[in-house]
Amino acid sequence: MNSRTPAAIAAAALLACGAAAAQFKSPDDAIEYRQGALAVMGHHFGQLGAMASGKIPYDAAAAKANAELVATLAKLPWSAFVEGSDKGETSAKPEIWTQRDKFDAGAQKLQDAVARLLEAARTGKPEALKAAFGPAGQACKSCHDDFRKKH
Amino acid sequence: MNSRTPAAIAAAALLACGAAAAQFKSPDDAIEYRQGALAVMGHHFGQLGAMASGKIPYDAAAAKANAELVATLAKLPWSAFVEGSDKGETSAKPEIWTQRDKFDAGAQKLQDAVARLLEAARTGKPEALKAAFGPAGQACKSCHDDFRKKH
Repeated sequence: MNSRTPAAIAAAALLACGAAAAQFKSPDDAIEYRQGALAVMGHHFGQLGAMASGKIPYDAAAAKANAELVATLAKLPWSAFVEGSDKGETSAKPEIWTQRDKFDAGAQKLQDAVARLLEAARTGKPEALKAAFGPAGQACKSCHDDFRKKH
Repeated sequence: MNSRTPAAIAAAALLACGAAAAQFKSPDDAIEYRQGALAVMGHHFGQLGAMASGKIPYDAAAAKANAELVATLAKLPWSAFVEGSDKGETSAKPEIWTQRDKFDAGAQKLQDAVARLLEAARTGKPEALKAAFGPAGQACKSCHDDFRKKH
């Protein structure tokens, strides 16, 4: 059961993606873009994880800078899961397109979690970062479990 | 002739990269990261170019959002040209490592040009965007000509 109209979905997508919503020349371009955004986000998220777990020393300025990048990048990939980009060099499962509401909800959950991670990083307190990191990591994992092919 | 000491170069690199300076698990990770950052930046830069050239209608909010992303992303790739990452799936020329000062100067020139592009986008005036786009595009091209292998 899905009561959302195509117009409402399009409006929600525009809100989610922001004014810089991407327009792609081809499905391959869209794949390259979303993989790029996810790779860069994943890297900076990994830096935060290393701090949260004590693998590298806590550094308040670095935590803030990494969390800002993660929060910015977490907005980008979703508009690039365009029609036709289920084919090609991608690990995207077809369920992204057949269960789009669930996928979009997962993307939103991640954005909410990394917004809280950024708030935590801005406190300058390592324990705040540590507490906010887990839910953000869980939001990544949940979507990967459902929508990314195993390597 | 290069009078900069390794310590001074390292300090400058840290300043250039900011507090979120990337640390990579492997050269391949660094390649994936820098290619990702450049691909996402290139996409949003292309959106600005399409507006500057009139291919798509000027939209002040979209111009600002795209220019903010470009300015943020333009800081990222350079710290990922680490030692050993001249090998692998990369179009990076060896000159990046043998002419590092020139490469770093080009990277700075780009960052300066996209900072001006962001200022221009923030004016909300299409003619300001158009004027600032050319020099930024030239900064991309100049570095690609010198440091990126032809495809």
